[in-house]
Amino acid sequence: MNKNAFRQLSYGVYIVSTWDEGRATGCTANSAMQITSDPATIAVSINHGNYTNECIRKLGKFAVSVLGEHSDPGTIGVFGFKSGRDHNKFDEVKPEIRGYMPVISDACAYMVCEVIDKMETDTHTVFLGRVVDADILNQDDPMTYAYYHNVIKGKSPKAAPTYIPEETQAEAEASYVCSVCGYVYDGEIPFEELPEDYVCPVCKQPKSVFRKQ
Amino acid sequence: MNKNAFRQLSYGVYIVSTWDEGRATGCTANSAMQITSDPATIAVSINHGNYTNECIRKLGKFAVSVLGEHSDPGTIGVFGFKSGRDHNKFDEVKPEIRGYMPVISDACAYMVCEVIDKMETDTHTVFLGRVVDADILNQDDPMTYAYYHNVIKGKSPKAAPTYIPEETQAEAEASYVCSVCGYVYDGEIPFEELPEDYVCPVCKQPKSVFRKQ
Repeated sequence: MNKNAFRQLSYGVYIVSTWDEGRATGCTANSAMQITSDPATIAVSINHGNYTNECIRKLGKFAVSVLGEHSDPGTIGVFGFKSGRDHNKFDEVKPEIRGYMPVISDACAYMVCEVIDKMETDTHTVFLGRVVDADILNQDDPMTYAYYHNVIKGKSPKAAPTYIPEETQAEAEASYVCSVCGYVYDGEIPFEELPEDYVCPVCKQPKSVFRKQ
Repeated sequence: MNKNAFRQLSYGVYIVSTWDEGRATGCTANSAMQITSDPATIAVSINHGNYTNECIRKLGKFAVSVLGEHSDPGTIGVFGFKSGRDHNKFDEVKPEIRGYMPVISDACAYMVCEVIDKMETDTHTVFLGRVVDADILNQDDPMTYAYYHNVIKGKSPKAAPTYIPEETQAEAEASYVCSVCGYVYDGEIPFEELPEDYVCPVCKQPKSVFRKQ
């Protein structure tokens, strides 16, 4: 079986958010799709280990923010490479409240869903949500996972369904890679000459976490 | 609720295929996503009314062919706008057998899955499949639904989760539209001057099914 075939499935880049007893939290996701049109339902796949999974179970409600090509890519890092268990993600990314739920203010669209069913797998829960509120926030084009991967040079967190271990990923030539999120530096200035306060554009970690590959 | 928000979710264009007691059949789908990475599982959403749904239930196995930007767009029409109940779709689109399943030969990748779970909704079944075979077939870029919609000018069949009724779709200026699949003619030659053997590039229906809008 050639696991690289899975990379040919197309996705967007989403933040799935919810409330943790009054505190907003969430995680980055690629796996979101509409299941029925009337009533409108959406399925999202969230790893069992993600704190967001636990919080959605408790509240029975989640929001999906659709990131656009011009959304701050740092949001992906904050929501994809840190845990809501010990980190207030929405301290770094100001939420907007829509349909009583926290959504990402520079997302291009959002949907608020009530959980009506779920399907368990070994590692992930597929939550099926009935959409109770949805709107377009701006005219940005939705960010696709291909755009995130090819243009922003981002990777999947280990908990993502789309994660493929490093050794099977076809990498470009040796370069500096963020050890936290896998972002490959490809700026014009040589990496060594970047200022010391340079931070990873995806996960906002300092220059010191980059490793030469 | 603004249903246009749903259009901001990103999808690919897939043919979900299976065997109907020795006869290959299938349907067009946008809703396919990876759920877990190890073991690899994929979920697809198929309308109850689609004959493919019935056949997947019986066999417990399906294949997902990932269409590429250079795949014949006519495949989308054959598999999206005709029923496998009364039509041998694979008579028009030659299948290739991979992992004992029929797949689309000009697709860019395929996955063969065994059904391990399903979730029912009012109109669709979400089949969860464990991937037992997968490969890349060529180096074409996967076709996204946005590409299908914007470049090929295709629409969703009524049974698709992504279907939005005509009156809520923001259409371009009056033009000739295929009454079967919704393809909007936008060639340089005026529609009236096209030869009589012109057929819809998406669903292969004759010129006579086009309506002026």
